[in-house]
Amino acid sequence: MDDCGSNFAQWKNQCLAKMDLSKKGSIDEDIQDVVRFINLSENFFTTSSCSGRIILIDGASDCQDVQKQNCSWLFVTHQMCHKCDVVSGLERSQGDAVFKFEPFVLHVQCKQLQDAQLLHSLAINSGFRNSGITIGKKGKIMMAVRSTHTLEVPVSHKGQQLVDDHYIDFLVEVANQKMQENLRRIKRFYDSLKSAMHPEKLHSEMPDVAEKKSVYKRRRKRAQERSKAALCQNIKENTSSGESDGLDSGLDLFK
Amino acid sequence: MDDCGSNFAQWKNQCLAKMDLSKKGSIDEDIQDVVRFINLSENFFTTSSCSGRIILIDGASDCQDVQKQNCSWLFVTHQMCHKCDVVSGLERSQGDAVFKFEPFVLHVQCKQLQDAQLLHSLAINSGFRNSGITIGKKGKIMMAVRSTHTLEVPVSHKGQQLVDDHYIDFLVEVANQKMQENLRRIKRFYDSLKSAMHPEKLHSEMPDVAEKKSVYKRRRKRAQERSKAALCQNIKENTSSGESDGLDSGLDLFK
Repeated sequence: MDDCGSNFAQWKNQCLAKMDLSKKGSIDEDIQDVVRFINLSENFFTTSSCSGRIILIDGASDCQDVQKQNCSWLFVTHQMCHKCDVVSGLERSQGDAVFKFEPFVLHVQCKQLQDAQLLHSLAINSGFRNSGITIGKKGKIMMAVRSTHTLEVPVSHKGQQLVDDHYIDFLVEVANQKMQENLRRIKRFYDSLKSAMHPEKLHSEMPDVAEKKSVYKRRRKRAQERSKAALCQNIKENTSSGESDGLDSGLDLFK
Repeated sequence: MDDCGSNFAQWKNQCLAKMDLSKKGSIDEDIQDVVRFINLSENFFTTSSCSGRIILIDGASDCQDVQKQNCSWLFVTHQMCHKCDVVSGLERSQGDAVFKFEPFVLHVQCKQLQDAQLLHSLAINSGFRNSGITIGKKGKIMMAVRSTHTLEVPVSHKGQQLVDDHYIDFLVEVANQKMQENLRRIKRFYDSLKSAMHPEKLHSEMPDVAEKKSVYKRRRKRAQERSKAALCQNIKENTSSGESDGLDSGLDLFK
């Protein structure tokens, strides 16, 4: 095994052996299968995840700091939400409360750039349009699955509710619709992941699909060859220090 | 010039010669300098941008389609907004209106992966935490600058306003604060871009900074050497087809 492979295996073992330090302390129910599937693959492991959540956060009033330190969570669920939970959370607000829907987020460390590219294309095609690749300072290749599909609504100021109960009803309905759509996208992502990573299994189970997929595979193979040629060319340039055109690559800034 | 270089130059010329097909038809005022600066560099060009906007969108009511086709814009500004504009836009709502703040978005095509990495690190360090790299099927390397810093508030349903005028006041204030913070981040990004791409200019103008920067540069150089070694190793693997572990790279799916 070369250096990169052994580094990756070491990172993976270290990461998966670590305690889950999140507030919740466990992987969210709706993504346990997809997280397990990714971690079973030799070329990937997940470093953090959230299936999607509906959350009511209380921030300091008149705080110009955008990051809003010292926020407290008045209510959070990774499932559909009930109006009563939001209303009772809101009653405890002492600052500026914000009602949010935050969609599925998944960070996956990948062995090779081409693994990250595969995952990225599957994420984009499943509706996670803000997904992207990051390459860290030690050569860590990360793929982040992210969506544009959010809700962020101020609902109290200095502890005073800004909206009426009918509006809370409406918000809960909108957030729950977004949660359902989020779950559909996660399923699409998981299905396409299984299909891309175990095509031979699909072939034996579904002969019709197998026939269609083999045509698809030939097309894909040709595209892949063209793409690999283009990528190799780019990569060749990338490793040649004579091509930097005065740019300081600033690699120490990478997280 | 090799294939990649000539491809990149051709893509750049084609892109910059094209008409601006956006609704607005021109580059937003607050990012004209940063866009011009990027396009003057041999290794980059911008393919789309928005400086950030406050927008009121009217979507079809009872529409389960998340993408909400057939939306109309009731109001949009790339500057701070005034309550009267939002109120008069809202009066024209016939469906489900949503008031949004959408932060700075910039798509930059990069010549080499290391150029995208530089830009990505600058974006992350300027506060654009959802930024990421995409590698397309023809080897196009894109860096997207994106932020988590949004606002998305339902304000009417079937043409009926859901919130009162005091709430609109509050929303306008929050959106304007987000717009100001967005401009601060754009400035930070532009300043760090100028500093990273023309370090010698900074050195001659600011001797103290130059001294500090040269220490910083030595550290950076060491980190860069380590990083390049790690990246080369990854890339070597990436171009070797024998390492795929049964993964189908699915490159034809890339946009």
